[in-house]
Formats: sequence, structure tokens, C-alpha cells
Amino acid sequence: MVCEILCVGTEILLGEIVNTDGAFVAREIAALGFSSYHQTIVGDNEQRLREALRTALERSDVVITTGGLGPTLDDITKATIADALGIPMYLNEEILNDVRAFYTKRGLEMTDNNIQQAMIPEGAVIFRNKWGTAPGIALRKKVGGRTRHVLLFPGPPSECEPMFYECGRPYLQQLTDDVIYSLNLHLAGTNESEAEDILRDIMDESENPTVAPYDCEHEVRIRITARAKDLETAKKMCGEMKERIAAGKAGKYIYFETDTPFEAKNATVIAMIRELRKAGLTFAAAESCTSGMIAARVGDIPGASDVLLGGVVSYSNEVKKRLLGVPAEVLEKYGAVSVQCAGYMAEGVRRVTGAGITVSVTGIAGPDGGTPEKPVGTVCFGLSDDKGTYTERVLFGNNKNDRARIRRLTTAFAMMLVIRRIKGII
Amino acid sequence: MVCEILCVGTEILLGEIVNTDGAFVAREIAALGFSSYHQTIVGDNEQRLREALRTALERSDVVITTGGLGPTLDDITKATIADALGIPMYLNEEILNDVRAFYTKRGLEMTDNNIQQAMIPEGAVIFRNKWGTAPGIALRKKVGGRTRHVLLFPGPPSECEPMFYECGRPYLQQLTDDVIYSLNLHLAGTNESEAEDILRDIMDESENPTVAPYDCEHEVRIRITARAKDLETAKKMCGEMKERIAAGKAGKYIYFETDTPFEAKNATVIAMIRELRKAGLTFAAAESCTSGMIAARVGDIPGASDVLLGGVVSYSNEVKKRLLGVPAEVLEKYGAVSVQCAGYMAEGVRRVTGAGITVSVTGIAGPDGGTPEKPVGTVCFGLSDDKGTYTERVLFGNNKNDRARIRRLTTAFAMMLVIRRIKGII
Repeated sequence: MVCEILCVGTEILLGEIVNTDGAFVAREIAALGFSSYHQTIVGDNEQRLREALRTALERSDVVITTGGLGPTLDDITKATIADALGIPMYLNEEILNDVRAFYTKRGLEMTDNNIQQAMIPEGAVIFRNKWGTAPGIALRKKVGGRTRHVLLFPGPPSECEPMFYECGRPYLQQLTDDVIYSLNLHLAGTNESEAEDILRDIMDESENPTVAPYDCEHEVRIRITARAKDLETAKKMCGEMKERIAAGKAGKYIYFETDTPFEAKNATVIAMIRELRKAGLTFAAAESCTSGMIAARVGDIPGASDVLLGGVVSYSNEVKKRLLGVPAEVLEKYGAVSVQCAGYMAEGVRRVTGAGITVSVTGIAGPDGGTPEKPVGTVCFGLSDDKGTYTERVLFGNNKNDRARIRRLTTAFAMMLVIRRIKGII
Repeated sequence: MVCEILCVGTEILLGEIVNTDGAFVAREIAALGFSSYHQTIVGDNEQRLREALRTALERSDVVITTGGLGPTLDDITKATIADALGIPMYLNEEILNDVRAFYTKRGLEMTDNNIQQAMIPEGAVIFRNKWGTAPGIALRKKVGGRTRHVLLFPGPPSECEPMFYECGRPYLQQLTDDVIYSLNLHLAGTNESEAEDILRDIMDESENPTVAPYDCEHEVRIRITARAKDLETAKKMCGEMKERIAAGKAGKYIYFETDTPFEAKNATVIAMIRELRKAGLTFAAAESCTSGMIAARVGDIPGASDVLLGGVVSYSNEVKKRLLGVPAEVLEKYGAVSVQCAGYMAEGVRRVTGAGITVSVTGIAGPDGGTPEKPVGTVCFGLSDDKGTYTERVLFGNNKNDRARIRRLTTAFAMMLVIRRIKGII
């Protein structure tokens, strides 16, 4: 079955917000085994929403919309789609009570514009909204002899995502038999182009499972995707393909594999936490240019408290001296961005936190602060454990207006250092 | 003139990546004064790309594509579009040298699949790629008597964004006269629904500038957008509308205004840094459940080093005691998640860093660790300055699987605490 996503919102067309709903729903429908060939975004405009809906219903069995269900004037999705499908709406008292209760619970009064959220097309399946006010709905309609399904979800991700899990997924599961399963292999030390060159034969001949490399800033990801009648078969197909890839030239680059989007997004930090756990080591970081990003990334992962003790953000030289014990002479002689300073920082944070292994970063993230000797993108790393202290200097990027990217690459590199150390590579 | 965005990439359709390019280009073309009514995503599929291009060329003057320009098999955008427009391609030796030099500089050998990146449609304007390998291009074609422009950019944001700034913007500026200008007002302490209720009269009667409220997790944003022949006029129109809104009921909620997307995205932290600068105060944070996010958000802002001294990530109780001097009795009697502990943490980090004002957070971000007395989402805040110590306990969210959101809300609330303190509200 073919499913397509239709996102409604002028704020998306204007680039005011990034369309994370589109990515979320896309991932979910792929996991349910739906094929998806188009995704469309239109603004809060009745005529263009009608046209987009008509096009989508001509080519897809299921259309999922996000956005435009709220209480405000520009929330037109529900009324427009109901009208386009010729379905009248009624005021649902139960939903109106839900909405009123939502406000009462927060000590607020419900404004009149909220009533439109309780208007429901006749015969619609209602998805109750426990995370906000606007309910989602599912509508059915025969188009050209085939039954089409239109599912409407609210735009805020904090409502769209749990509602999709709780109501959308069970609804969609009844419509399909096929299962799609994806396995992600994470590679460090190579690039997309080399990865594809290595994998070309496999990619050329593989239709199911498919194999595709993606460039993800500090790593390359290979996605293996299989379609089958049941999950077990799809998993087995991906597993066999993985063995084949791992046995070839790409094998040495693979440092992590996962089948969940959360782990794929957080591969480096999860791989580091696993290595720390295997080695029985606790972790702390001393951060200058990343100012807390490394510790924050570790804390992103639920249950990280068994390895993460904490850390020191030593943005100023004073804090490097006072909290981490970096000698004033080192700062004077080599500067704060030096492997010498990084070494002292890593040792200092290990001393004050008592962690088993620590990393430190001190660098120039830009846009200012670069010199010919230490251009923007220069980062010095330190690592301290009971084997001693390791330091390394790296230059990231070639663009001084790349502060955010330099800091992300620095964060990832620091974590890879820990993995390399525990694995005995450095 | 009407411009639309056509993103190419199966990884977007499958939700493997979030389409940040779409948001970026959308924002840029809006700023240049183009109208945009559709955004479409198709996979790496020749036939569907052709159809999407045809549809786009029928309704828009300019089509901007992102993605599918790289060296791999599934990079089909350029060849497909050139063929669809009937333009033959040739091997551009200069570009091939660029690509080869890119690899040589990194000590890598260029694989053969890179040659397709140097194939250029005849007559195309070439956008050199200094940030990666695949060049962008601009093509012109008469469709139904009107000249259409098709601009192709690579998919990786680290290439797409600088290339758009350097090459895409000047190309597009020549095509249009109109200017669009947006001013964002940031409101704390209200919600989208109430904001719209307050603003309904203004919204109803306003066509240019338009006024629209958006819900942005911990704040509401009102966007005022004006279209005019020159920037000065558009700015004046927005400024007048702002004065009108600020004079009404919404005025008391406004804590920040900006006309740049970067500042809008970082409104709370930039507002805090401004208040710190005005008050001549340095800043540090003691973070438990956010594990560095507050310091990291401050460090996101270039030039933050004049206010940010650093901080302590005290994820474990041991670090709370050792580095921040939280008394063991306090941890035993009240627990780590308590206003008492938060108070000691804020005072401790102020003492060890010497900062003028500090905040602390300690809470339960979930999914585990909640109790009936302290459910997931419970966060205790502390603030210390020369006026004394302030503490507050807050409950965020009603969903225990909301770790990321709880941590983001905690980070924003901590910054708002600093703003409220400096403004004398607490």
C-alpha cells in the first residue's frame, strides 16, 4: 500500500520551522511497510490544500496530514478536508469537554476559538489528544472504486508523535501486511564516496534488501532495508546482508549497528556508553569550546547515570586554573588551545570527579579568535585514564563561519577518542 | 515571482534524515521576496523526479532542488533534470580538477564514481563548491513563453547553505524586486491560543503586514511579515505593527524581538546574554538533569565568552558534594532533587567559578526515577547572586517518555530565571 504525507503550514513554507513531523511520520510509515513516493507541503491556504489532497488521493491509498488542527484562524486543515470529501461536521461535546478540561487543569480559561477543535466530521474515527487540545481524526472515502484513508494529526511534535504511536499506528497496522525492517551500520574513518565504491557491486545487485550509504557529518551510515511478510524474515535478510558487508573491505570501518532511529541518531554516544560499561569505567569531561555539549550528549541517553559522573565547563582560563588545576605557566607558554592545556584539563577533571576515564577539549570554534598558527577549527583533545594521558590536535573544517558544525564534530571526535582508547587503538 | 522547492532524496521520504535544507532554502527565498506555495519531496527516482519537475515548472518561475548531486549511484538529480529539459551534458575539466584536488588535499584517492560530479549541462551557470565536491548549477528554460529557472544545490547542509549564500542568493536577487521582511516577537507566560485571542482583531484586518502566532514549546512567537518595494519600507511597516501590538494586551508578555532566524531560534539565550551584559554580570551553571545543556546553549552564541565563565555538570551525588560542596546531610534528608540541594548547587558553582550570577538545575528527566512525590518532570531550580539565593520547584509535562522535551524546557526555564532576576521580577 502507498501512503503519502501532506504537511500543512505556512510556517514550514517560509522556513520558520523545520518539518520534523514529516521525518517522524515518514519513518513510522516506512517501518509499517507502506511505500512512500511523495511528500508535499502547502501553506494554510484552502485552495492549495484541496488541490494537494486531490493529487494525493489519486496516487496513494493513505494520506496523512500534519498541522492546521489548532484553535487559530489559520488552522484550516480539518474543515477544508471534510468539505473536500463532502462530509459534514458536528460539535462533539465530549471533545469540547476534553479541551475545556485541558485549560482548567492549567488554571486558564478556554477562549472561544477553541470550539473549532471540537468540530468533528461525521463518521470519523477520533484520536483523543492527551498531550494538547486538538484531536486527530481518520476519515474513509471511496475514490475511483478504492477506499482511501485520510488521517489528520496536529502539528506540534509533542502532540503528533505520541498520538501517532497510540492511535495512528494501530489504525495503519490493520491496513497492511508487509513489514519493512532497516538495519544501520555506522562507519568511522571513511567517506560516502569511498563507501559506495567499496559497496558498488552489492548495491547494484541488491533489490531486497537494498543497501545505501549516507554521509552523516562525522561518519558514514549504510542502511540495509528489507521488505518481507513478517519481521523475523526481514531481520534475517538484513542480518545476512550485514555479514556479507562486514566480511568485505567495509568491515574494518564499522563501529556500531542498530535498528532503531534513536540509536542511529545517537550512534557515537551510545557506542561510547557501551564501551564504558563493558570496561567498567565511569566518565567525565572537561570542556572549553564545546561548553557542555559532550556531557549533554551523554545525558541525552536515558540511564546514562551509571557511567556519567559529570564534568567541568571551563570556558574561561580562570576556571581552567581554579577547578581543573591547569598551571598558569602552561596557559601563558602554550595558550589555552594547546595539547599541553588539554592534557592538564583531562587529568584535572579525572582528579576532581574521580572518573575512570576523562576527555577534554579546548579549541577555536569561531567565527573569531583564529590566528595563522591556530586557525578557526583548531581543537586540542586530551584523554586521561589509568594508562596515562593522551593528547591530539585536530583541524576541523575550512570555513570560519561553521561554529555549530565545528562544535558538533569536536563532540563526536572526543567520544570516538574514548572508544579508540578502550579498544586499545590509541 | 513564485519559487518552489523540490527536495530529492529517498532518505527524506523514509524519514532517515530531517529535511533542514527545505527549511533553510524556504527562509532564504522568503527573505528575498519570492512567494512560495508548495514544497515537494521525491525519492531518488527518475520518473517521479521528472513529474515533480514538470508540475513545479507549470506553476512556479523558479524551482530550487536540493540533493542528488553527489558521486553515488542514487544521485540522479542533475542528469534527470538536464534530460527532462533537453540539455546535453559535457565533462567539465575544471570541475573535475576541483573534485580531484578535494580528495588530494585530504590524502585520499578520487574514486571513478566522482566523474559524474563534473558532468555539466551545456550553458549552465556553475556554482563552485568550496565546501565539498558536487558543484551546484543554474539552468534556464522557456516554458509556455516564460523563462523558468532551475537551481540545483547539493544535499549536505554544510555545502548547501554556504553555496546558497555565495552563489544562489546573488543569482536570485537579479530576478526579483520585492522584499519581504519579518520581525519576530517572543512572548513568555502565555500560549498560542490566548495570544491569538488577544490578536484576533489585528490578524483579521491585516493583509500586509501579516501577523501570525506560533507555539514554540516554552514560548509563543508572533511573526509580523511585510512585503514592500524596499527593505526600509518593509521594516517601517513591521515596526509600526509591533508598536500597535506592544501597546495592547500582548505587550506585557513580550520579552524579546528579532529579525534574524538565528536570533529567533536562540531567543531565550540571547535575551539572557543581553541582560547579563547590561547588568555587567558573568554567568555559570551547575547542572544535573540537563548535564551541560545550559552552558552548551550559551556557548552556541558566538562571543559568549564575555559572560560565560563555565560550569559544573554534577550528574552524580559525589560530584555535587566534591565540586559544589552540597552537604551530605542535605542529600540524605531532602534528596538530590530538592530545592535545598538546588540552592547549595547554585551557591557552590558561584563560589568555585566566581561568577556574578549562577543557576542550578536538578530534576527527574525520565523515563525512570519518578516517584509519587517527585514524578518524572519534577525539576528544582536554584539561583545565586549578591542579593541572595532563590529556589523554585516546577513540574514539566505529563508524559514520562518526554526526556528530551523536559530537558529542553528545563534549560529554557533556567535562562528565564536569570532574566527575571536581573529584571527584578524575582
